[in-house]
Amino acid sequence: MTLKNFKITVEYDGSGFHGWQRQKCDRTIQSEIEKAIANIVGERVAVIGSGRTDAGVHALGQVANFRCDTRLNEAVFQKALNSLLPEAIVVRMCQQVDPGFHARYDARSKTYRYRIVNHPLPVAIGRQYAWHIRRPLNMNAMRAAAEVLLGRHDFKAFEGAGSPRSHTIRHVFRAQLRKENKAHYLAFEIEANGFLRFMVRNLVGTLVLVGCGKVSMKGFATILHSRDRRQAGATAPPQGLFLVKVSYDEYDRSR
Amino acid sequence: MTLKNFKITVEYDGSGFHGWQRQKCDRTIQSEIEKAIANIVGERVAVIGSGRTDAGVHALGQVANFRCDTRLNEAVFQKALNSLLPEAIVVRMCQQVDPGFHARYDARSKTYRYRIVNHPLPVAIGRQYAWHIRRPLNMNAMRAAAEVLLGRHDFKAFEGAGSPRSHTIRHVFRAQLRKENKAHYLAFEIEANGFLRFMVRNLVGTLVLVGCGKVSMKGFATILHSRDRRQAGATAPPQGLFLVKVSYDEYDRSR
Repeated sequence: MTLKNFKITVEYDGSGFHGWQRQKCDRTIQSEIEKAIANIVGERVAVIGSGRTDAGVHALGQVANFRCDTRLNEAVFQKALNSLLPEAIVVRMCQQVDPGFHARYDARSKTYRYRIVNHPLPVAIGRQYAWHIRRPLNMNAMRAAAEVLLGRHDFKAFEGAGSPRSHTIRHVFRAQLRKENKAHYLAFEIEANGFLRFMVRNLVGTLVLVGCGKVSMKGFATILHSRDRRQAGATAPPQGLFLVKVSYDEYDRSR
Repeated sequence: MTLKNFKITVEYDGSGFHGWQRQKCDRTIQSEIEKAIANIVGERVAVIGSGRTDAGVHALGQVANFRCDTRLNEAVFQKALNSLLPEAIVVRMCQQVDPGFHARYDARSKTYRYRIVNHPLPVAIGRQYAWHIRRPLNMNAMRAAAEVLLGRHDFKAFEGAGSPRSHTIRHVFRAQLRKENKAHYLAFEIEANGFLRFMVRNLVGTLVLVGCGKVSMKGFATILHSRDRRQAGATAPPQGLFLVKVSYDEYDRSR
C-alpha cells in the first residue's frame, strides 16, 4: 500500500467552532475535515494542521496535510471534500506532496491579521469578523509600537497561560498596521516564524492601549522586555483574528 | 401630550431574521426594534419602515420612524436603543423630525446592492453576504443589459407573486454593475423610486443568465417588455441583497 500525502489550504469561518483542534464533544475544524476524509476513503485519517487556532478565530489560509490510501487525484479529492464539508469550511487548494511533508514541522512562517473597526458605533454587517473599539485610536503611536516587535524577542509577556512550548523566543519578520479600504477598519498584520498561544490577541490588546494613549511606545517596549504577562493588556477577542498564510520553503519562496 | 417623531437609520444583518415585517411568532427586525422602544418608553409603539425587506436580506441604511412620548433627546434615545437591540441590529442615526414625516410615504428613492462572488470555489468568510456563482460571468454583457432598465418601465416580469401594489411601473434612476475592491466580488447597484416584491433578486437572477450567455441583451429587453414573470430567470438568493439607502427630499438632496 502506498499512501498519498495531501497538502490542503483551508479557509474557515471560526464563528461556530471550538477552534481547530479535535475535541471529544465539541465541533472543531479538524474533526469536520477528518470526518469528510473518512467519508471519502472509508477510514479514519489524522489531519495534521500547521498549528491550532482558538475558538472563534478564522482562517484564510490554514495549511494541513494527511496521508491516505486513495486512487483519487488532488482535484477530485478537493471537490469531494468541499462537497462534504459544512459551508463554513472551504478547501481552497489540494496538492499531492512528497511523503515527508509535515504541515507543522515544515512551516517556516505564519501570517496573522487582526481586524478592528474603530468607530463610536458598532457594525451589524461583518461584526463576526472584527473587534469593535469605540475610542479613536492613534494609528501613528500604534505603528511605532508595532515596529518594536520586529526581530528576535522573548514574547513571554504576550503568552497565554498553559501553553506547551519549549521556549518563548520568536522571530517577527513583519508587523504592520494599515487602514483597510473599508471605512473605519484597521488591520494589524504580523508575520513570524511561530506564535505563542494568544500571542497575537495579547499583542493587539496591548497595542490598543497604546492607541488609546494609556501606554506609551516606550512603555510598550518595557512590557515586551519584562517577560511578564501581567504587564501586558487584555487578550483581544477572537473574532478579529485571521490566520492568513502559512509559508513553507519548498512550496513558497515568495517571501 | 406632545409626541416626538423620530427618524432612525438602521443597519442590520438579516441572516437570523424572518425579514423586516412584524410577525406573530417569528423574529423580525421590526419587532426587535419595537420591543426595544417599548422597553425605553414603557408602551408599545408602532415602527414604520420605508418598506419591507425579505427574510435573510440585509440593510446598511433602512429608514423607519416612530412617534412616542419621551423626554429623551435623539442622541440618548439612539444610545438606549443600541444598548437594548441584538448585535445584528444597529441604529446608525436617530433624528427628531417634524411630526408629519412618514418613512414609507415620503421616500423618494431607494438604493439596493446585490453582491456576487464569482469564482469556481465558494467563500467561507462572508458567505452570508454574497451569492456564489461558479461560472465566469461576462460583466460587459451584464452591464449592457442593466442599462436597459434605466427609466420608466413596467416591471411586472420581475415581480414576485402575491405582492400588494397598485401598479407595476417603476422609475429606475441608476443601474450599475461594478467590481468590488475585494477579488472576485461583483456588485449590482440599483436606485429607483420604488421596488416590487423580489424585483431586485429577480433582476439579478436574470442578469446572471445574461452573464452566463444564456440570455442575450436583446433577450433581456424582451423579457422586460413581456411583463411575464415566467420569461425571467430564477430569484437570486436573499443573502446577497442589501438595502443601502432610502432618500427623502427634505433630508437628503445629495442625489
